[in-house]
Order: sequence, then C-alpha cells, then structure tokens
Amino acid sequence: MMMNPPDLSSEPCHPDLLFMVLYARVTFPLPESRLLMLGELSHHVIMILKQLPRRNGSVLLMVTALAAFRLALIQLQVSSIKSDNLTRACGLVRKAAAQGAKIVSLPECFNSPYGTNYFPEYAEKIPGESTQKLSEVAKECSIYLIGGSIPEEDSGKLYNTHPGTVSYMLKGAYCRVGLGICYDIRFAELAQVYAQRGCQLLVYPGAFNLTTGPAHWELLQRGRAVDNQVYVATASPARDDKASYVAWGHSTVVSPWGEVLAKAGTEETIVYSDIDLEKVAEIRQQIPIFSQKRSDLYAVEAKKP
Amino acid sequence: MMMNPPDLSSEPCHPDLLFMVLYARVTFPLPESRLLMLGELSHHVIMILKQLPRRNGSVLLMVTALAAFRLALIQLQVSSIKSDNLTRACGLVRKAAAQGAKIVSLPECFNSPYGTNYFPEYAEKIPGESTQKLSEVAKECSIYLIGGSIPEEDSGKLYNTHPGTVSYMLKGAYCRVGLGICYDIRFAELAQVYAQRGCQLLVYPGAFNLTTGPAHWELLQRGRAVDNQVYVATASPARDDKASYVAWGHSTVVSPWGEVLAKAGTEETIVYSDIDLEKVAEIRQQIPIFSQKRSDLYAVEAKKP
Repeated sequence: MMMNPPDLSSEPCHPDLLFMVLYARVTFPLPESRLLMLGELSHHVIMILKQLPRRNGSVLLMVTALAAFRLALIQLQVSSIKSDNLTRACGLVRKAAAQGAKIVSLPECFNSPYGTNYFPEYAEKIPGESTQKLSEVAKECSIYLIGGSIPEEDSGKLYNTHPGTVSYMLKGAYCRVGLGICYDIRFAELAQVYAQRGCQLLVYPGAFNLTTGPAHWELLQRGRAVDNQVYVATASPARDDKASYVAWGHSTVVSPWGEVLAKAGTEETIVYSDIDLEKVAEIRQQIPIFSQKRSDLYAVEAKKP
Repeated sequence: MMMNPPDLSSEPCHPDLLFMVLYARVTFPLPESRLLMLGELSHHVIMILKQLPRRNGSVLLMVTALAAFRLALIQLQVSSIKSDNLTRACGLVRKAAAQGAKIVSLPECFNSPYGTNYFPEYAEKIPGESTQKLSEVAKECSIYLIGGSIPEEDSGKLYNTHPGTVSYMLKGAYCRVGLGICYDIRFAELAQVYAQRGCQLLVYPGAFNLTTGPAHWELLQRGRAVDNQVYVATASPARDDKASYVAWGHSTVVSPWGEVLAKAGTEETIVYSDIDLEKVAEIRQQIPIFSQKRSDLYAVEAKKP
C-alpha cells in the first residue's frame, strides 16, 4: 500500500482546465447520489481517472486542478429568496476572484434555506438556473468553483447533498484537492485515503449546528489536518438565528500543522488563505509519519473496482 | 471488517486479574521491542489472546481488564535519582489507589531523566528494581498499573520505549483499554484498530516537548477521542525546565465527545477521571459513525497473523 504521496509524473494532467462546477446529489431521505460536472467543456477538460465502487451512488473522483493558489470560502448569508442567494453568491465569487482566489468554495445548501421542508420549493433541475449561473461566473473569473450543494429535482424525486456519502478528489500537476460534504469530515478514513492519494488540501462545504459546531467543527478540521498533514478548509453558510436550522458559521482554513490560518465569525464574509505547498512538504519532512506508519500492523485501504 | 464494537460474550474473561505491570522495550536506536508482563501470576491470570505479526518486535496484545473504574495519571516530577523517582512514584500510586483509582498510569521514562545519554546509567534488568517495586505496589493496592516506560539493559544492549512502535490492548468483560506510547498517538490507524476491537479507553504515556506539546498534545488526544468515540488519556512527566529534554506536562483525560475532562498543569500531580462506559455507548448512538462508515469505499484493516 502506498503511504507516501504518489508520483504523479506518469499521470496525465490538464493545466488548461480552468474551471468547473461540481454538484453532488443524494436521494432524500434515502441515499443515492450521483456526480454532475458542469461548465464549458469545449476546451476545459474534465477527466475522471478513477472511480471507486459505487454504493448508494457515491463516487471518488480525480480531476486536474491548479498548482499553487489562493483559496476563498464564501460564507454566504442564505435568505429565503433563491434569486437573491444566487446573485449575492456570484457577486462574492467575483469579489474573491478579484482578490486573487483561484479556487472558491460555496457553502452547503447555498441557494435555499437548510431543511427538507424547503427542498420541494427550492429544488431545480440540473443543469438549471443555479448551475448555469455558477458555470458562467466560474468561466468569467477563470476560477475553480466548488459549488457547495443545492436541492435538486429530477424525475419527480428530490435530492440533496447528503452527509457522509459523497466525496471527490480534484487532481492536478502540483496540487490535489479532496472534497467532502459536511458530515463526511467525521470519517477519518476518507481523509486518510485522500492523503494516501497525494491530496494536500481537503475542502468540506458544510453546515454544522449550534451543538456540533462548538463541540467538533474546528476540532475535526484540525484533527484531519494534523493527522494527514494537509490543509483543511470548510465553507459554512452564515448564521441566521431565525432559521429553522441555525448554521454554526465559522468557515475556516487550517494549516497542515493544525493551526487555524483564517476563520470567519458567524456573519456573511469571505475567508481567504494562501495555500503553500512547500509547507506541506516541510511538515511531512519534519514529522515523517507517512514513512513511519506501521503498515505491517494496520493500513487504511481504499476499495477499488 | 468489523466496524461496531465486537461482541465479547464468547471470549473468556478473567475478573480475578487484579493487577499487572506492563513494560515495553525497544532497541535503541534501532527499533526492536518485546513485551514483558510482570506481577503475581500465581492467581492473577494474564492472557494473550491475539498477537499481531511482529516486525521490529512490536505486538498488539489483549488481556482481561476491569469493568467500570476510576482512572489516575501520575504526572511524576522525574529527578536524577532513580531510587527517589521509584519511591515517589510508588507513593503517588498508593495515593491514587486510596482515592479509588483502579487503573493507574505512570508516565514515559518515569525513573530516569529523558534522553539517550542517561540510559546507560539508569538502565536495569527486567525483572529488576523498578519492575519489582511496581509489581509490589500494584499488588498491594489491587490496581492495574500501566508502568509507563524505563530504560532497560539486556545482554549488553540498551532499550527504551521507542515512539511509534509499541502498542497493547487490555481487554475485559466490560471495558477494553488500548495502550500506546507517546508518538504512537500521531498514528490514527492504531486508535482506529483499537476502536474496531471494542476499546473504550486509550492510554498514552508520553513526553511531548515544548514545540509539539502546545501544537499537538491536546489536539491529538481530542482528535483520537472524537474520531473513535473513546476516552483518551495521556500521562506525561512533570516539567523540569533545567532538564535537557523539557517535557510538556499537561497529562489529560478526554471524553468520547472530545471534551477535556481533567488536565494537569506542568507540576507534579495526579489527574483523576471516572470512566463512564455508558457515555461511550450514548455518544456512539447519538452520532453513529461506526455503523455509517463506508466500508465499500475504505477500511482500516489490522494485519493479523
């Protein structure tokens, strides 16, 4: 089993992949997800290198990503007006791009109040209004846009990004980014698999609540970061105390040393952090846990097709 | 692969196992460890149920342990006088037992200053002065005594508990305790294997320093606790600012929810915490990550003989 970051030299990379929008959907309430990738595909290649066995439709995915970059997390104040959410989300994405961000993440459920009772009203087709707008703004700004999640309707069924079942990996010549949604962050194994496969950054759009937020939100991020010696970032909706589900907020970026580099409060804001891949290499040399793992005693193993 | 705590009912248990002293030793500087178990074996059964494949002599071990109990961590001020360290260690063990502790842990390298230059002078045979004294006090107090570590000499070679290579598991009818030494705590997989095998408490005698201590000591404990929904405890030597290796101190007990239940400062002290196994079950029901793990996508696997 490969414990060190893999050699990427033999794998194709696509530096011309300038943007994409990722969407996951999972049947609500029963899990069944699929992955949609939208955007201008004419010359922006999206490549699925590997796909793990699907159960409930989840996938692990690797596509080419950027090298060094500035990361921005949009902590959107989600209102009850979808068009308003979309307009403001796109505005904040433009603002982040103007500040030099190359990868921007929206939060979980960014265009709708959070809660299953809202989904029938807010759900839309994919492609649809929201994904179209995100595709446009991603192209306009030449960024990678991680689209968080939206309620989706397809063939009369409602879908939502469902915690614990969806994961992706963006892969590039210089940087690999692992993605999870919200509750995924509780599963150490997912992050361990990402680290084995060379990820240096994990991004989790997510909406913890006022119980799990103070107890575990930062702890889980710092734990994933220090255990795997990767950057970890979370993008939460801003807090709305009048909402039926009150999000914790506090979108965060954590260094591979486990330090909080940037952290929002509860209000709408953009969190920025520069991702320094040298830092990852330096820390992995300083505390060489990857090479010291006792693979004779234990191993985290990804189940491949 | 078993993700839920295993059913222990079919496995033999030995409630009459009243005490034991555990010692690990690892070749210094090359790792080669073995496990010694000392104590009154005439009627106190020590049972090796399983032994994982050895590389560099490390073992995973399961023996019968107590049910519910009070845990005590001895944060000993280690001096340069071995007999003084031993006398004070035993005195603090008696004090902890008088307070109702049933499992007591000493810190790493408790009878000698920490550092390879001290080992030739402080190393002793096993059985020897230190292990004999610990066996006596464990029997006298009717407790489990986790003996931390000591420098050992055998056939002209020096041994020390060496980070990252030694691990044990105590097993009982009601509670299983996983043990690691110091740097072991950085390896998430070890704790994950313990959790798979039904541990509800992990104990790490260890001596972090003034760099890794503030950065990672508490974070790693809280991370192991929340990821595996187990109690986690660490036993450090007290700080000695004049020593060549300055230990961080701050022996700690963390709940399965990730809360710090008890935490020492830097001075010599005893940390107590009552281990409530109901709490483990309650949290595992509240956030059922064990049953929700995606074993179709990933798994932590212990390598068995």
